[in-house]
Amino acid sequence: MLLHFTKMHGLGNDFMVVDLISQRARFKPEQVKQLADRHFGIGFDQLLLVEAPTEPDADFRYRIYNADGSEVENCGNGARCFARFVRDKKLTIKREIRVQTAGGPLLLHALDDQRVTVNMGAPRLQPSEIPFHANEKATTYPLIVDGQHYDIGAVSMGNPHAVLAVEAVDQAPVTALGPKIEHHPDFPQGVNVGFLEVISRTEGRLRVFERGSGETLACGTGACAAMVSGVLRNWFDTTVTLHLRGGTLEIEWAGPGHPVMMTGPAVRVFDGQILI
Amino acid sequence: MLLHFTKMHGLGNDFMVVDLISQRARFKPEQVKQLADRHFGIGFDQLLLVEAPTEPDADFRYRIYNADGSEVENCGNGARCFARFVRDKKLTIKREIRVQTAGGPLLLHALDDQRVTVNMGAPRLQPSEIPFHANEKATTYPLIVDGQHYDIGAVSMGNPHAVLAVEAVDQAPVTALGPKIEHHPDFPQGVNVGFLEVISRTEGRLRVFERGSGETLACGTGACAAMVSGVLRNWFDTTVTLHLRGGTLEIEWAGPGHPVMMTGPAVRVFDGQILI
Repeated sequence: MLLHFTKMHGLGNDFMVVDLISQRARFKPEQVKQLADRHFGIGFDQLLLVEAPTEPDADFRYRIYNADGSEVENCGNGARCFARFVRDKKLTIKREIRVQTAGGPLLLHALDDQRVTVNMGAPRLQPSEIPFHANEKATTYPLIVDGQHYDIGAVSMGNPHAVLAVEAVDQAPVTALGPKIEHHPDFPQGVNVGFLEVISRTEGRLRVFERGSGETLACGTGACAAMVSGVLRNWFDTTVTLHLRGGTLEIEWAGPGHPVMMTGPAVRVFDGQILI
Repeated sequence: MLLHFTKMHGLGNDFMVVDLISQRARFKPEQVKQLADRHFGIGFDQLLLVEAPTEPDADFRYRIYNADGSEVENCGNGARCFARFVRDKKLTIKREIRVQTAGGPLLLHALDDQRVTVNMGAPRLQPSEIPFHANEKATTYPLIVDGQHYDIGAVSMGNPHAVLAVEAVDQAPVTALGPKIEHHPDFPQGVNVGFLEVISRTEGRLRVFERGSGETLACGTGACAAMVSGVLRNWFDTTVTLHLRGGTLEIEWAGPGHPVMMTGPAVRVFDGQILI
């Protein structure tokens, strides 16, 4: 069949977006891998499938798959692309869009300037929820890597994040230290690792080593986790602009118990048709 | 304007192919760079523009641009994709297609199995034509790298190639030795470096370190140069199957003065539309 798709990106985190309301298709993991290949296929970080909801109070359901065919719970950059996609394709005229995802419900708000605000939910800070091996909740935790001591924040945004402060992100040992923290035994399910440079109480720079992927241009949940950890460590006010390699996000968080609101761009690159 | 394009590949060497006979567009180098970006754009190794010929005996003209916006003279993988494109898009019903390129005229033959044979022209073997610093033409030349002696073949297929025999391509020091030969002072314009494993008189394996690009999935002119050098060194018969990382090419060469005929696949991945 001839499958219609749209290629989009949020801060360079790129997606093949497929409307499965107007057309039917199923994807096996092997097929996702082939489509994701940047030389032999379409090329993308994630495949985003837009479906009709199965729950009564949702407008849509979406599912996200990594380039290796595994399903992802949540993705902030993908959520923004999703919101722009359903409005561009006239699948909805709503500005407030309720989405059912594998990581739970998401509330999205489409702004006038093509940016989208995503309610990323409240961060989970209990070690057992992350999951992280620690006796009790703390603002920072000591982590020993290769005999060296690091103070890290540990935050779940639906997926686990470790947040490490650095003097300058450009010189941060992202590829050397990232995989060692990712596979540290204290994170039994692995962890995404954020390297955060605090510029001021309202601005920072961030590089993220993603679990299973390596360093990426922009990790939405990583930006939220870094913001939360920065607020808990009293480095940040409640609204922060974070510069990632792929672009800039604005993040708001009023403190524990409150949801993290992430605002950023969503770009439609091209429409395509592929025989599958 | 909404530009129609097709994404294709030949052995993983991938192209954005644009029909500039049915539609009009111009591309500035900066725009080619943006389109070539694999996260923010369409993503490709080269942009291939299909145009009406300006010479009387040509069926088409094509132009190829690298991802950095610079124009390329010739590309065997691109030529095969071009032939498949003009037939798929019904721009011609001919099987023998004469093309005007920046590197001179090309003759292409579309086969029934979606493969295409490209007449790559006769190899140039005089050192001054390659260019290579040597007193006289020889089958192999000694080359000293880091105090070690290597026997190399030197062949021009419109671009310069050094061909080095190795026991097993999988263990060949492609990334370590490739750049040192590429920049060797005896090749004043640099050189592409082929690492050739001879399996039999009709079969070989090849990895190519491309000048200015590093190791690639498949280099068409590199495969031709390796075949020519292998025939001159009496390792190969006149028809050889060469396995590259991105797939397999069949190459024929009857000897000095004769053209090299390269046959291989051309794959159409998807059609797309982008607002430019």
